[in-house]
Amino acid sequence: MIISTKRGTPQEELQKIVAEFEAQGLEVTLIRGTDYNVFGLVGDTTKINEKVVAANPWVDSVTRVSAPYKKANRLFHEADTVVDVAGVKVGGREKVAVIGGPCSIECEESTVEIARAVKAAGGCMLRGGAYKPRTSPYAFQGLGTEGILDMVKAREATGLPIVSELMSEERIDEFEEYVDLVQIGARNMQNFQLLKAVGKMKKPVLLKRGLANTIEEWIMSAEYIMAGGNEKVIFCERGIRTFEKYTRNTLDLSVIPILKEKTHLPIVIDPSHATGNWRYVEAMSLAAVAAGADGLIIEVHADPEHAWSDGAQSLKPQKFAEVIAKCREVARVVGRDL
Amino acid sequence: MIISTKRGTPQEELQKIVAEFEAQGLEVTLIRGTDYNVFGLVGDTTKINEKVVAANPWVDSVTRVSAPYKKANRLFHEADTVVDVAGVKVGGREKVAVIGGPCSIECEESTVEIARAVKAAGGCMLRGGAYKPRTSPYAFQGLGTEGILDMVKAREATGLPIVSELMSEERIDEFEEYVDLVQIGARNMQNFQLLKAVGKMKKPVLLKRGLANTIEEWIMSAEYIMAGGNEKVIFCERGIRTFEKYTRNTLDLSVIPILKEKTHLPIVIDPSHATGNWRYVEAMSLAAVAAGADGLIIEVHADPEHAWSDGAQSLKPQKFAEVIAKCREVARVVGRDL
Amino acid sequence: MIISTKRGTPQEELQKIVAEFEAQGLEVTLIRGTDYNVFGLVGDTTKINEKVVAANPWVDSVTRVSAPYKKANRLFHEADTVVDVAGVKVGGREKVAVIGGPCSIECEESTVEIARAVKAAGGCMLRGGAYKPRTSPYAFQGLGTEGILDMVKAREATGLPIVSELMSEERIDEFEEYVDLVQIGARNMQNFQLLKAVGKMKKPVLLKRGLANTIEEWIMSAEYIMAGGNEKVIFCERGIRTFEKYTRNTLDLSVIPILKEKTHLPIVIDPSHATGNWRYVEAMSLAAVAAGADGLIIEVHADPEHAWSDGAQSLKPQKFAEVIAKCREVARVVGRDL
Amino acid sequence: MIISTKRGTPQEELQKIVAEFEAQGLEVTLIRGTDYNVFGLVGDTTKINEKVVAANPWVDSVTRVSAPYKKANRLFHEADTVVDVAGVKVGGREKVAVIGGPCSIECEESTVEIARAVKAAGGCMLRGGAYKPRTSPYAFQGLGTEGILDMVKAREATGLPIVSELMSEERIDEFEEYVDLVQIGARNMQNFQLLKAVGKMKKPVLLKRGLANTIEEWIMSAEYIMAGGNEKVIFCERGIRTFEKYTRNTLDLSVIPILKEKTHLPIVIDPSHATGNWRYVEAMSLAAVAAGADGLIIEVHADPEHAWSDGAQSLKPQKFAEVIAKCREVARVVGRDL
Repeated sequence: MIISTKRGTPQEELQKIVAEFEAQGLEVTLIRGTDYNVFGLVGDTTKINEKVVAANPWVDSVTRVSAPYKKANRLFHEADTVVDVAGVKVGGREKVAVIGGPCSIECEESTVEIARAVKAAGGCMLRGGAYKPRTSPYAFQGLGTEGILDMVKAREATGLPIVSELMSEERIDEFEEYVDLVQIGARNMQNFQLLKAVGKMKKPVLLKRGLANTIEEWIMSAEYIMAGGNEKVIFCERGIRTFEKYTRNTLDLSVIPILKEKTHLPIVIDPSHATGNWRYVEAMSLAAVAAGADGLIIEVHADPEHAWSDGAQSLKPQKFAEVIAKCREVARVVGRDL
Repeated sequence: MIISTKRGTPQEELQKIVAEFEAQGLEVTLIRGTDYNVFGLVGDTTKINEKVVAANPWVDSVTRVSAPYKKANRLFHEADTVVDVAGVKVGGREKVAVIGGPCSIECEESTVEIARAVKAAGGCMLRGGAYKPRTSPYAFQGLGTEGILDMVKAREATGLPIVSELMSEERIDEFEEYVDLVQIGARNMQNFQLLKAVGKMKKPVLLKRGLANTIEEWIMSAEYIMAGGNEKVIFCERGIRTFEKYTRNTLDLSVIPILKEKTHLPIVIDPSHATGNWRYVEAMSLAAVAAGADGLIIEVHADPEHAWSDGAQSLKPQKFAEVIAKCREVARVVGRDL
Repeated sequence: MIISTKRGTPQEELQKIVAEFEAQGLEVTLIRGTDYNVFGLVGDTTKINEKVVAANPWVDSVTRVSAPYKKANRLFHEADTVVDVAGVKVGGREKVAVIGGPCSIECEESTVEIARAVKAAGGCMLRGGAYKPRTSPYAFQGLGTEGILDMVKAREATGLPIVSELMSEERIDEFEEYVDLVQIGARNMQNFQLLKAVGKMKKPVLLKRGLANTIEEWIMSAEYIMAGGNEKVIFCERGIRTFEKYTRNTLDLSVIPILKEKTHLPIVIDPSHATGNWRYVEAMSLAAVAAGADGLIIEVHADPEHAWSDGAQSLKPQKFAEVIAKCREVARVVGRDL
Repeated sequence: MIISTKRGTPQEELQKIVAEFEAQGLEVTLIRGTDYNVFGLVGDTTKINEKVVAANPWVDSVTRVSAPYKKANRLFHEADTVVDVAGVKVGGREKVAVIGGPCSIECEESTVEIARAVKAAGGCMLRGGAYKPRTSPYAFQGLGTEGILDMVKAREATGLPIVSELMSEERIDEFEEYVDLVQIGARNMQNFQLLKAVGKMKKPVLLKRGLANTIEEWIMSAEYIMAGGNEKVIFCERGIRTFEKYTRNTLDLSVIPILKEKTHLPIVIDPSHATGNWRYVEAMSLAAVAAGADGLIIEVHADPEHAWSDGAQSLKPQKFAEVIAKCREVARVVGRDL
């Protein structure tokens, strides 16, 4: 950690700062500049709160040199983590995992039908929302437990593991029992209460990036889950909020090389929520696989025009199969299968 | 709701769209343009999901004309809502309410001491965090119930109502019993599960704006709480996330005239979290009052350099008193007291 | 164009609005809603200024249905435009064009050397900055004419067409004479004076997206150049400004399918400026080609650690050759050559 | 400047880095950490290019401790700069300067009429656009020289100094002759060619903040002008681009205390362009004055509904007079006159 102090900081104030950090067991080096003095701290600085240091009126800026995450940090865990989702392996050099399914679960019949289509197209997991985070209290909020059970039927029919979003601690037992991959949605990425609870689950977690969260904050949310004891975390990029109006969100594919450099966890891309438009899903899926994504999560609906939510971004099964076929070719070029 | 269709949409597709909306009891007017056809829908469109309409491949764009909120909408509730927080009135032409206190509660003694200082300076409520949303799992997470009880002691000593952040449904009983104004933090603004739960509480709610949420989404979150039955909602702006690096967030004071135009609920400004720097708190407090804010929520700490969190943005009691005195003068100029 | 008026707008005000638009030769249809009245305008609305319409105090919102661009619009020009840059064809089903070279031109010798390396690696054009837009007035501002002439030497030595940034109308003659593809930088994307001047040039233009410009504004800047008579415009995405700190900018690859839908012009991706880090250039290059980019522009430097600017994002020639080889394979999978 | 290197950087690489900086006359201190080594550089680091340093593959991060600006830096120029605009003083403890006028100049008669209204209301300068930066090439581009001469007539009639936007070096002589305060628009904030040219002018400059530029970049643009010899720079905040849709831009009033801390130059606020809506102009004007702004620039039009541009954000003269009267009272409370 590097601390710079203002021009004209009195000698005794500099000494007080040094004394305070030394009392915490840190080694302090002082560099005297022309307009500033700079301290370098060596030792375990993870417990030092930058904001508290910055409260000192003589302090000008505080810069953290080492990353604030440990368990997720590639520096301390060189090998890729491969997460096992009911037999489907995600990460490392495993096959690129394609997850497909509807935004919202609507009924058992249509869920089983889509699951069959997803499997036939080459998908390896079924996604579906039973508890839906909706901006409006007047919008359809999901079928709840009924929806989860519809997915279970679809799993029985196809063998595909199921992925669904958990919105509340209250439902943890239900998800631990029925769901194979527990999704934490973008709006809950910093619902720390929920992250702690999920950290105690045995099921792997798909952690979506928040609407406007930095990659560092995202890794810190994974760290929350891992610090609780659950190290089976898969990142999922679904676009960030920007000023652009032609897409719902801006898909940030640079997270793929960055997360692979900074962490050892897998990364899955969601082109459907990112763009909000099925016309752009194919191009963004191909791009994600080319950039090294460990998986894709794509909305698929048999009849998007009559979907109960997000029809505009859903692919029909036929189109989904075409996208998978093209992605497979790209995957092979970059040394992966799919 | 206005729907435009693509050039070359076949006649029968246009008719299908018209038939579908008419079947939902809406009146449909078709405007034929040179490159587009446009439909206008009249009637109750709140239950129509734009994204589903947009899933039709012939549809080019969907625009909602009427606002998606009702209970929070000034159009249907002309008078200002005044929220009563244990006797302190917020909103309308009432006094500008100044809430002060530490970021985190540290112990009973310091809490009572700060509460006395807040009251002496002219503050009318005490804020304090007992459950803290922290980016790092390794950072101090708050004293929990102990912190809430410390605040209760401070209320007994000073008579100031207390404000604290609720992070989990599990703590609703505790907050209903002890806390006077229940804060929903920025990171939980779209934790819809929590919003629904708070909608059933009797205590008023201070709803912070999310890091990157639009004003419309923010009003929709208030609508969630109100739709649940709790109409005592106070908005709190605490800065939004932008590219700027000299401040922690960008304080958006334009929300004051906008919320007053679109809704009837009070609006409080948090200059401390917005700027992240106590040096800028005075200027932003004066600006907020001049723009018509119904209240301010300011971090105050007796010894910011040794605060357990966010010391950099806390005012010392003496400075807090000076800020209040200046704000009072500005308030009078704009026709309010403080 | 759709105009909605406020609840309670008097009948005579509605009539005035109708009369005003009819006087401009537009056909007006009125849709009466419960809380709003909506007008639809049919005819040539490109000259109507939304902001002026919105100045009417009875008007609530103004929505443009048809796109404000014509010459760049795919609706009126279905076939892909292929831009010829001194014999290298960009766009349509042509080869993916890879442009390589240093951020700043440093001397003739190193420029010729890099040009040879770019060509050997499979690049088809040489980029290099002679006039540099630099945040600091104290930073190196480029070699100017000398740099352009160094590039001319490199073209003579290799046959590669040259690309360089034009920052001022004063240099138009120089660029018309020597440069094959005239780059308009991100910071000048809305320097309308310069766009008009470039619209009169004969040389093709590489139009970079502004730091925080929407895709629609970007197309409108192309429209400026085309309206001036120069229809040889190539778009170049180089990342937009967001809150993220691990990359210099956020590369928005969704522009590829969007621009191909809305316009007929080619699109080139700059992964070097977007990420600001050579480690991420390969992944983003592969992603761009997979998504359908018509070209790449990549910084290459023989000795990045001693480059005069932007060394951190430059590839060494060896690495550049590897990236091209991988991109070629991806290109073939998506039906292109490279 | 602080440079951290990666874990495992070989000893000889560390020595090479030290040697390189020492050769540039800098003093280098090395701090050895557990996972990183950190160098502190002391001396004149303004010429070191961070990006070039970062190109070294062993370097992990580069942090600049001292600000990159000198002439604009409060550290080296403690007293407030007061800029004299044809007799009207802006900055320091001078009166808050209110500039009013139309977005675009339309004709001599209306310009003189508005100038009279601005003066009668208490305004001290006349603004007006003769050269207009417009997103669309088909929109009205301004009257040009004719518009400037109309403003000159208005100055003769009222004595108000005139402010207008310069878009091109070509017009520098015209502006030097006729215009009192030369505006550089948001879209040209990083048109470095224009900044250099303006740096040689004798007239003071009103430098608008770019759509998505940081405060530091904005100060660096002022530094460009000052480095050229023209130290009469006034900053003008006009809102930044964010995701919010209810305002055209997000007005960032925190720039007021920040610029006053970091620089010695005056700061003027433009609430009209920031909000894009005349209804919000009064609240934002009062806020700006309360926060310590040195001036306001407000759009005023006698007949906004028939303005040639930006009518939606213009105040009528009567409303403008009311806003000034209220701002004057706020100014007095914060120790200024108006």
